[in-house]
Amino acid sequence: MECFSLDLPDQPETLEQILVDCRDTLKYGVRTGHPRFLNQLSSGLDVVGVAGEWLTSTANTNMFTYEVSPVFVLMEECLLKKMQSILGWSDDVGDGIFCPGGTISNLYSILVARYHFYPEVKTRGMGVLPQLALFTSEQSHYSVKKSAAVLGMGSENVFMVKCDESGKMIPAELESSIVTAKEKALVPFYVNATAGTTVYGAFDPLNAIADICQRYTLWMHVDVSVELFNFKYLFSRACSVTWNPHKMMGVPLQCSAILVKKRGLLQECNDFGAEYLFQTDKNYDVSYDTGDKSIQCGRHVDVFKLWLMWKAKGSEGFGSQVNKCLENAEYLYDQLQRRTDFELVLKNKPEHSNVCFWYIPPSLRGQPPGPDRDARLHQVAPRIKGRMMEKGSVMIGYQPLGDKVNFFRCVFSNPATQQEDIDFLLDEITRLGDI
Amino acid sequence: MECFSLDLPDQPETLEQILVDCRDTLKYGVRTGHPRFLNQLSSGLDVVGVAGEWLTSTANTNMFTYEVSPVFVLMEECLLKKMQSILGWSDDVGDGIFCPGGTISNLYSILVARYHFYPEVKTRGMGVLPQLALFTSEQSHYSVKKSAAVLGMGSENVFMVKCDESGKMIPAELESSIVTAKEKALVPFYVNATAGTTVYGAFDPLNAIADICQRYTLWMHVDVSVELFNFKYLFSRACSVTWNPHKMMGVPLQCSAILVKKRGLLQECNDFGAEYLFQTDKNYDVSYDTGDKSIQCGRHVDVFKLWLMWKAKGSEGFGSQVNKCLENAEYLYDQLQRRTDFELVLKNKPEHSNVCFWYIPPSLRGQPPGPDRDARLHQVAPRIKGRMMEKGSVMIGYQPLGDKVNFFRCVFSNPATQQEDIDFLLDEITRLGDI
Repeated sequence: MECFSLDLPDQPETLEQILVDCRDTLKYGVRTGHPRFLNQLSSGLDVVGVAGEWLTSTANTNMFTYEVSPVFVLMEECLLKKMQSILGWSDDVGDGIFCPGGTISNLYSILVARYHFYPEVKTRGMGVLPQLALFTSEQSHYSVKKSAAVLGMGSENVFMVKCDESGKMIPAELESSIVTAKEKALVPFYVNATAGTTVYGAFDPLNAIADICQRYTLWMHVDVSVELFNFKYLFSRACSVTWNPHKMMGVPLQCSAILVKKRGLLQECNDFGAEYLFQTDKNYDVSYDTGDKSIQCGRHVDVFKLWLMWKAKGSEGFGSQVNKCLENAEYLYDQLQRRTDFELVLKNKPEHSNVCFWYIPPSLRGQPPGPDRDARLHQVAPRIKGRMMEKGSVMIGYQPLGDKVNFFRCVFSNPATQQEDIDFLLDEITRLGDI
Repeated sequence: MECFSLDLPDQPETLEQILVDCRDTLKYGVRTGHPRFLNQLSSGLDVVGVAGEWLTSTANTNMFTYEVSPVFVLMEECLLKKMQSILGWSDDVGDGIFCPGGTISNLYSILVARYHFYPEVKTRGMGVLPQLALFTSEQSHYSVKKSAAVLGMGSENVFMVKCDESGKMIPAELESSIVTAKEKALVPFYVNATAGTTVYGAFDPLNAIADICQRYTLWMHVDVSVELFNFKYLFSRACSVTWNPHKMMGVPLQCSAILVKKRGLLQECNDFGAEYLFQTDKNYDVSYDTGDKSIQCGRHVDVFKLWLMWKAKGSEGFGSQVNKCLENAEYLYDQLQRRTDFELVLKNKPEHSNVCFWYIPPSLRGQPPGPDRDARLHQVAPRIKGRMMEKGSVMIGYQPLGDKVNFFRCVFSNPATQQEDIDFLLDEITRLGDI
């Protein structure tokens, strides 16, 4: 980037230079919409979604009041209702709000759960509450721990429940963690279950977890990284759900919602009746002002692109787009099974769109398992990924997990990805790995 | 909106219908870029800013790692450094991050302040801390109270310090609130000062507040709703600053940053070393991965539009754009002083771009002050605003404040607004108020 100056000038640059700056920004950026960008779940470039974003930025408004966002506020309500019906929640029991990302949605779930059990926390703080305990699987997203820290609950009061070898939370382990917490004089109140873990794409056993939550009167949240069209009614027992349309549904970043199965809770938990902003004597029904339901004051319009994509695809379109991604995952799994230079991390067919595998370079083939092989295998994925990024041919993630050394994780969410891209991926790993 | 269906279909709609939907969305929306939209500080439609947003949504990436956002991450760093130098902070002492809105930026300031004094809160929670006290002026933004509630500190532990009649925090009142808090066995740790309050646009006396913070070893945050180009070095004593380029600088929503004068604090406060997402054995300097500095995991690219506008205007361009708005405020003030059908809420010249006033309809002119006049005057602004919205001719905010009944508040941030728009505003209020 020798010629690309990022410095901020005192005097304006010329229009020509501004255009050069724009071109350079795109040139040196990463093409997340490319069919071979397989690095993470938010990928692809849906043209209707992008059009939606363009219109949104042209409208340049704020979700906090109906008076400045009448259409977008109604669209949000419409979307939230539809999403609740897909969750299997009956009419008018639920509520929700669009948030800046899945971590904030998960944070909301803990926030409203705490308020549900201890409404006094809002005015008096954590000092008047017992020491609370939260539960999530050891393979869940770190946002539960992070949110607990932010909310003043302390990350060590988040119990990381053990998973089985496919990455699902073990219900018996959840129950024994709850007992352990109680023995330590902590008060369990919240369980996060995951539908689609980050690495394996595993689904926690929601029904068994719901049974335990019911038995101990705990708030059950489900963090859903996948789409929901193919899992209707699996989530009906959850108290709250994080749904991220910017993942499997391919909506441009960012688009995430928290759905709460207790109408009014978000508002009660977060409102401070700031009358100087949210006047009650307006000439419309001020229950449409969403500013007191959210933590944020100003809130970006994240709903329009989703709404427009839904119009353009229909629910069925989203469903078949996701199926395409699942087919890709199955195709990759089949290829990996067939080849001797790769090894699957999980033997079973992928539950969702994540496929995890090692590449075994020639020098390691036939070497017996053990610390020496592990140490060398651990370096393979980072080295290959480094070369991929330099060459710019394909992009995929890797990470270690538990006692497993670095392995590749391929996720499919871009409907533009074809089987030949998957063939290319494996061949390219071979090419780069054998240098 | 009879013909505009918001319902989400199972089957796709036609492309023609999608285009009609887009047109309807814009048609029934509020034109926040119109020169007569004077309702709030985020307004206007900067073409370079919009172009920046369009490019951002086309790039469709995520700020959390350098590997997927190399250019945007470097731009963020560049912007934050520039902003710190404008604040008068010496090189390399500070840090910062762009956030989804000013309330989240303010929330960060409390979060890092708490961690600065009590790092054990991250793992152990508020239960092991003393009962903390926060201070902010009674005319400050409600986000301090809301954030304290979210963070588990309790809103009643936020002391609302009295203001003088122009809306500035009274330093002696701050000091006596601190003493009161201590007498109640609370531990003061954080003061929020405001530079540009929501209603009056008042500036708290920063130096006097900094003296008090120094004396009592408190974290001093400044919530800046205005721009900073014309106030160089006023903020050098702050421990943290919220800077919202989506307000006076006219950057499209959303664009807000928290700046922290202690390098590394954001990272220490928020990192959870999620190695499965933020690997440390990458082929680049992973200190460029910002995902562990933020509360969020995925983070929208809010920096590019600001960076591009800065290139296109230069610091001087932002400065003169703001001056234009301040001239408009002064013009409105002059007109209001001259007219007998209006009454200024504050007698002094506006400190910034806010001008507050009552319209006195013919029926109230000459009526003596008192509860009866107040009750009737209170209804004037809502009624006129309702008519404005129905007619769609102009848009301006109103609110009560303290013992003052509903008054109009005009804010200028759109450089497209001309003096004739201000004349129109006053004439239109007269027309609508006399119906």
